[in-house]
Amino acid sequence: MKKVNVAVVGASGYMGEEVVRLLLRHPQVNLTRITSRTYAGQRIGQVFPRYYEADLCFSNPDVEDIAANASIAFLALPHGTAAEYALPLVEKGVKVIDVSADFRLDDPDVYEEYYGLPHPCPEWLPKAVYGLAERNRDAIRGADIIACPGCYPTSILLPLTALMHAGLVRPDGIVVSSMSGVTGAGRKADVALLFAECNESLRPYKVTMHRHISEIEQELTKAASEKVVLNFIPHLVPVNRGIHTTILANAAVEDVTPEKIQNVLDRAYKDEPFVRILAPGELADTKHVTMTNRCEIGYAYDKRTNKIIISSAIDNVTKGGSGQAVQCLNITCGFPENLGLE
Amino acid sequence: MKKVNVAVVGASGYMGEEVVRLLLRHPQVNLTRITSRTYAGQRIGQVFPRYYEADLCFSNPDVEDIAANASIAFLALPHGTAAEYALPLVEKGVKVIDVSADFRLDDPDVYEEYYGLPHPCPEWLPKAVYGLAERNRDAIRGADIIACPGCYPTSILLPLTALMHAGLVRPDGIVVSSMSGVTGAGRKADVALLFAECNESLRPYKVTMHRHISEIEQELTKAASEKVVLNFIPHLVPVNRGIHTTILANAAVEDVTPEKIQNVLDRAYKDEPFVRILAPGELADTKHVTMTNRCEIGYAYDKRTNKIIISSAIDNVTKGGSGQAVQCLNITCGFPENLGLE
Amino acid sequence: MKKVNVAVVGASGYMGEEVVRLLLRHPQVNLTRITSRTYAGQRIGQVFPRYYEADLCFSNPDVEDIAANASIAFLALPHGTAAEYALPLVEKGVKVIDVSADFRLDDPDVYEEYYGLPHPCPEWLPKAVYGLAERNRDAIRGADIIACPGCYPTSILLPLTALMHAGLVRPDGIVVSSMSGVTGAGRKADVALLFAECNESLRPYKVTMHRHISEIEQELTKAASEKVVLNFIPHLVPVNRGIHTTILANAAVEDVTPEKIQNVLDRAYKDEPFVRILAPGELADTKHVTMTNRCEIGYAYDKRTNKIIISSAIDNVTKGGSGQAVQCLNITCGFPENLGLE
Amino acid sequence: MKKVNVAVVGASGYMGEEVVRLLLRHPQVNLTRITSRTYAGQRIGQVFPRYYEADLCFSNPDVEDIAANASIAFLALPHGTAAEYALPLVEKGVKVIDVSADFRLDDPDVYEEYYGLPHPCPEWLPKAVYGLAERNRDAIRGADIIACPGCYPTSILLPLTALMHAGLVRPDGIVVSSMSGVTGAGRKADVALLFAECNESLRPYKVTMHRHISEIEQELTKAASEKVVLNFIPHLVPVNRGIHTTILANAAVEDVTPEKIQNVLDRAYKDEPFVRILAPGELADTKHVTMTNRCEIGYAYDKRTNKIIISSAIDNVTKGGSGQAVQCLNITCGFPENLGLE
Repeated sequence: MKKVNVAVVGASGYMGEEVVRLLLRHPQVNLTRITSRTYAGQRIGQVFPRYYEADLCFSNPDVEDIAANASIAFLALPHGTAAEYALPLVEKGVKVIDVSADFRLDDPDVYEEYYGLPHPCPEWLPKAVYGLAERNRDAIRGADIIACPGCYPTSILLPLTALMHAGLVRPDGIVVSSMSGVTGAGRKADVALLFAECNESLRPYKVTMHRHISEIEQELTKAASEKVVLNFIPHLVPVNRGIHTTILANAAVEDVTPEKIQNVLDRAYKDEPFVRILAPGELADTKHVTMTNRCEIGYAYDKRTNKIIISSAIDNVTKGGSGQAVQCLNITCGFPENLGLE
Repeated sequence: MKKVNVAVVGASGYMGEEVVRLLLRHPQVNLTRITSRTYAGQRIGQVFPRYYEADLCFSNPDVEDIAANASIAFLALPHGTAAEYALPLVEKGVKVIDVSADFRLDDPDVYEEYYGLPHPCPEWLPKAVYGLAERNRDAIRGADIIACPGCYPTSILLPLTALMHAGLVRPDGIVVSSMSGVTGAGRKADVALLFAECNESLRPYKVTMHRHISEIEQELTKAASEKVVLNFIPHLVPVNRGIHTTILANAAVEDVTPEKIQNVLDRAYKDEPFVRILAPGELADTKHVTMTNRCEIGYAYDKRTNKIIISSAIDNVTKGGSGQAVQCLNITCGFPENLGLE
Repeated sequence: MKKVNVAVVGASGYMGEEVVRLLLRHPQVNLTRITSRTYAGQRIGQVFPRYYEADLCFSNPDVEDIAANASIAFLALPHGTAAEYALPLVEKGVKVIDVSADFRLDDPDVYEEYYGLPHPCPEWLPKAVYGLAERNRDAIRGADIIACPGCYPTSILLPLTALMHAGLVRPDGIVVSSMSGVTGAGRKADVALLFAECNESLRPYKVTMHRHISEIEQELTKAASEKVVLNFIPHLVPVNRGIHTTILANAAVEDVTPEKIQNVLDRAYKDEPFVRILAPGELADTKHVTMTNRCEIGYAYDKRTNKIIISSAIDNVTKGGSGQAVQCLNITCGFPENLGLE
Repeated sequence: MKKVNVAVVGASGYMGEEVVRLLLRHPQVNLTRITSRTYAGQRIGQVFPRYYEADLCFSNPDVEDIAANASIAFLALPHGTAAEYALPLVEKGVKVIDVSADFRLDDPDVYEEYYGLPHPCPEWLPKAVYGLAERNRDAIRGADIIACPGCYPTSILLPLTALMHAGLVRPDGIVVSSMSGVTGAGRKADVALLFAECNESLRPYKVTMHRHISEIEQELTKAASEKVVLNFIPHLVPVNRGIHTTILANAAVEDVTPEKIQNVLDRAYKDEPFVRILAPGELADTKHVTMTNRCEIGYAYDKRTNKIIISSAIDNVTKGGSGQAVQCLNITCGFPENLGLE
């Protein structure tokens, strides 16, 4: 196999750093450009000493330069900004793997409702593919723009689309409660994210209308073939990495055994290298999956309320972002899907 | 006011230690006995160096000795064991403030269902009063046995009973998701509770049939005047102290404004020293209440799903246990309710 | 006793917040002004929800206003700025308790060497008293400006000046290694202090010429009556609060028993409410003293190297700053020294 | 290259788990046996869900069985016990890589002094090689028993032996202060290691006569060609993984520039894949090396005291134990030294 030249645009946040970490050890990738306005000209080891030995410098993001040096570009930029780079890159023949939210939604009105600004290029939305690898592999293969799912949606959609497809849960009344580590809030100077403000603190935020609801409902609606409206409550908790998600969904039938849930999940994911279905009675724990590209899924059934309860865990930066993005790269390039990800 | 002589039975766990911490600075309490089989004969400072200067030794628990030296006894013992001490103490005229689960439930069958053993003295259950001070103050005043609420129930019942009483929420379909610090699991040598097993770990447990469901449903059923059955999902997260609870309840009417929720909560709690109702848009954070006896309550309304969303935070060891127990002592003794608790 | 009117200038950092916390519960203090340029006009509870119930607003710092409303002012400002407020306040008859570094040093040249700027008012240095209460009580009583010791120096000077005075240690070759919680770095938006940058991180900083060396050496030189030059290595570790200090000093004689060390420390501190001398074999742990004004001191003797080893622990924000400042207030006002501090 | 069959004896502690983690992804290793008395018969994924997909069961440790299935055995057992397995395994032709302390010391009397029991097989000590790969590579290559260094010694000896060899530091008066994450204390049910006892706690322990002093002094004495006696102070701090070590050593000459220190370290380690020498002014941080086999080394010179100050960081479980052990496996087998370790 020939190596592929890859650029990472916006490589100085936690998402960008993680893409770099994974690509540096990817056997089929030449990492040719990493960009950062803030750190342009500095060696990566000066900003992230963990990569002290890597011979790689930050440069200013420049579309010509990127296109001349890479056939695939990861965008780890804020929403709004990502679209600005995506278009000219695609027009120059560079495939774009975007970890921002700019191309996740089909409907530009929903984008505007949730992100508070008109979509920068609504006409491009149909060209983008939602990069949830396990559910959307074929479409990802040929796409010019792959919109990697948000971190919370990844932990929610993997279990829930499978159950929805199988008709095991009802589309109404779903409640999701998630906890995220602080890297999820980004690498930005903000008093609320200081160590002493997060340590020994447990807090919800955006308990209504969190932006990720838009893509969660969009994908669940497809899986259910009917409109899904749900509640999603994110919480910020003092760990570096990891999202744990608890989902409560009304069972579509009575007396669902744990084994029935397991069968559905096993059938959906038994050949997937990055989805771990636990045995009945076991529950997910983020510490089992941090620094991996795996999603761990446990489940239970509460017959008192006829609810199916799902417990899922991912590393928010890896499977919830950059690892999944590299998984999409592997699909796009025809590499084994787990190459560089084990 | 004359000082009251008090004993703490089972003073070497986190709950017992916290009762001791609070009583040592309580201006109207003589702490005469602290018991522990494990540490009998040792000074408290040898076990908890934080109290190095305190002139207090652990003794073996002995009913005669306790009754001779205290008119009120706190029991910070495992369920099952607490009842063994409560009865003879009450018979000797000692008032009992129990932080275990032994006297919280009205129905011994529910106790057996949730705690897995027959209740040791079902005939005494009617004599015990559920010690949720803000809701049950008058009954607490004269009780011989005060059964302090569990930590999770405290964070759930304070907001939810008020909303239920006011008819603002429907009794069906309630979902509660809580996060607790590791002191909640007790001070016991257990590999699963080691630092390196809890740090950087996020995990649910007992996602069905957690024992606290029994008292939550019991008290909500009283408030609703109809049977309440709900889902409660506890999570273990890496903080020392604190419980954050998120409650999603179906609004009984459409278009509930945040102000309406605030009015109900303000009316219920505006004169309460230990309940803080936040302004609309603010959410609870455990770091605002750790080491205090306060419950902080925020709220929101999701019109898309017609759910009222409550965010509440307490210190699991203080308001969720020992602080509330001292609040009950103050009620029992006719002291100002916040004495020794600010 | 009549209550004293007190202002806190610079009340929005961790040090200022802690002064406020302590003064709000101080029985002899009316807290009349808290200032903050950033938060002027906001209620304290909006910035620090822990004090939600407090009826107190931030105001802009104004010398006239402070002097009109307070007879004592705490300054919790950056060095350089503190001096600007101290002078006009003192001239208007307000006693100043400064937790910055501006008045700690006797020699303005040393100030310039360590702080990188000329001292703003060198002529005022002789009027200031170093506020290490246990060593300097009498001078503090009448001082117009009390310069509270730095956090690290407090943990070092309490044990070491006592040993030095007693002639138990030699003045040369002292090595000090300290670990501090992240509040020690202040409440400022800085990427290096983000949760995810500090959690799971252990790092030294300023391994030569840390600013606190200047006051440590100044005070030890006085205690030794000869010039002391030492090494001090601070480390940043992932806790909110607490400093642990390990000191290695050459014993002045051979075969120092732990009991001899204990005798010296006991003699120096046995009547001090805020110094805890541990028994031989016990070592200090920050968790025993956080949220208190106590310094806990353990010790050992290594006969292989003839070194006396000291282990001391304080809460960096309380005993290492604001608590000690309130202790100085108590001395100044003739209150019991532990008033409001237990 | 032919794969080598390997066993891990004592695979259920943190050290054993880490050997397993590394060997599972090592391209030239067949991991044939993992033993644990406690978990015999269970799949590894039941004990460590992180390895859920691994098809590997714990077995009881049996010398015959191990020798029949492995040509190399890692021993991750308590000291004393390791020797019991090492001898019969070597006699059956199995090479032993021991991460315990049983074969680190040359002198059985020193072993007895520090470990409190007579060495189980003093006559075997001359056959063992101290497995500090960077300093002892040639001897490791042919050894039957490789005694991997302790975690603290690794962080100390890598920088200090190089400086000592180069004559840059004096052998007397060395002071070492280290901080270790809680995995260093092992995976054992012990109240002192509970989350709530370690979190928000900073504490030294064994401030004299820590067992690791014996091997540190032994190896430094060899490097200095004269007897080295030093002080070593370990501290327990709330991180999962990582050791940071600060060393203060008297410079052998005056006016040592940081560049001179750098030259010595660069010369010693410039071709080493697992030693990172920082630039002048940079200091080590454990977060740069956790989950890697790297030792990061920074340095400074304090001309006021003529001390060379070293800051080094490792992952205590990887470079401080299991990673270094796998590095020794690679040397023994003639594999590239970094195989399976990047």
